[in-house]
Amino acid sequence: MTGRNGGADLVAIEPSPVVILVRPQLAENIGAAARAMGNGGLFHLRLVAPRDGWPQERAWRMGSGAHRILEAAQIFESVAAAVADLHRVFATCPRPRHIIKPVLTARGGAAEIVAVGARGLRAGVLFGPERAGLDNDDIAQADSLIRYDLNPGFMSLNLAQAVMILGYEWWLARGDESPMREMETHGTRVATKAELDNFLAHLIRECDAVGFLKNEQKRPGMVRNLHHLFQRGEVTRQELNTLHGIITDLRRGPK
Amino acid sequence: MTGRNGGADLVAIEPSPVVILVRPQLAENIGAAARAMGNGGLFHLRLVAPRDGWPQERAWRMGSGAHRILEAAQIFESVAAAVADLHRVFATCPRPRHIIKPVLTARGGAAEIVAVGARGLRAGVLFGPERAGLDNDDIAQADSLIRYDLNPGFMSLNLAQAVMILGYEWWLARGDESPMREMETHGTRVATKAELDNFLAHLIRECDAVGFLKNEQKRPGMVRNLHHLFQRGEVTRQELNTLHGIITDLRRGPK
Repeated sequence: MTGRNGGADLVAIEPSPVVILVRPQLAENIGAAARAMGNGGLFHLRLVAPRDGWPQERAWRMGSGAHRILEAAQIFESVAAAVADLHRVFATCPRPRHIIKPVLTARGGAAEIVAVGARGLRAGVLFGPERAGLDNDDIAQADSLIRYDLNPGFMSLNLAQAVMILGYEWWLARGDESPMREMETHGTRVATKAELDNFLAHLIRECDAVGFLKNEQKRPGMVRNLHHLFQRGEVTRQELNTLHGIITDLRRGPK
Repeated sequence: MTGRNGGADLVAIEPSPVVILVRPQLAENIGAAARAMGNGGLFHLRLVAPRDGWPQERAWRMGSGAHRILEAAQIFESVAAAVADLHRVFATCPRPRHIIKPVLTARGGAAEIVAVGARGLRAGVLFGPERAGLDNDDIAQADSLIRYDLNPGFMSLNLAQAVMILGYEWWLARGDESPMREMETHGTRVATKAELDNFLAHLIRECDAVGFLKNEQKRPGMVRNLHHLFQRGEVTRQELNTLHGIITDLRRGPK
């Protein structure tokens, strides 16, 4: 079902979400994902710790003309670094998990991405490694989950197929004349993930300092829960500044 | 993004449309298409003249657990044979063509497939070879076209991705509580493609016999146009019987 190879025309259609492949294993799948991105009009590709390094010639071979997407791909060492400049992060997650975050369908997620973009905010979507999927720490970086409505009797979804469905729904959602949502933040900017991480690091550092996280076995889960708590919904810069102040003052004790 | 491998659970969810891969080139793509079918809950796979023969071990390797779909695949020598027992055929077709048939989106096509199935009729969807896509003779076998709403700047859509989008939309369309459509045919059965082909063969044989199609250069186009004419919308068996009678009687001349 190949038409003309339109790779030369590939440009970013803004605002366009970032596709973040987390620890992808096969370069072929990265190439196939880039091709699917081209089909759906997506352009921004980020790779977190690709297993076999980058660049890989096999990705270009499978990309079928999506060279510009592959050439513009950015590499990061961690999910946190890859989402640092984003305002809203979605995690694709096939299995039910005991994580309290909003769960959207692909269609609902695409509509949300379009709405986020219409407000001038940058969105990104995390896709996990081929075998294991995203782990709990990856998912902790996300605001919402996207769970595809597909046959529960056959969950083995190829990485590029997962990207394709998102791109397809995003392309359709863009076409809808959805009115721009009213700004919910009343003048103050939504915090980026880096600003949020900076705050969480501050919070956890102080928790450690006061011995709140001293149980080594429970510590990872508690840290993750703190991440979840603040990732749920948008936090503004002003709110973060307030929270920073509270922590600092709590630690310093009464003046 | 792989979950548990649910291949053992794969069963046909009826009524479920037939996926027909026309002259597929790469066994890997057949396997990937079968996997996508599993994701979307589709089960019935037909192959028309696969280039490298069948079965091919590479298909099973790419099928990622969709073995049952591959094992149940049926092989045909022609599109006509592959659609013979179907009542409604859709052709996926990425490029605009000068063919007068209804054109649906993937979403619209999926809704139509569900509606057709709810009436007890069998539907099938044609997917063309990787490079060239469906040719005009293939498309002539279809009632309607399905054209995906995707980035026109990058039309190179992988075969398995095309199957994935259809399966995804079909799975969603099934979930909608769409009321069963009223039977439009008032008691008489919709003709299968074999019954329609039998009629068209009769019609063309008689046209040839009377010299109507004697222009050898124009003949293929005219035959195709006759096919298009009768494929447009459903023809009932009773109507076909009437048409058969008309042709027979026209040929015999006045009693």
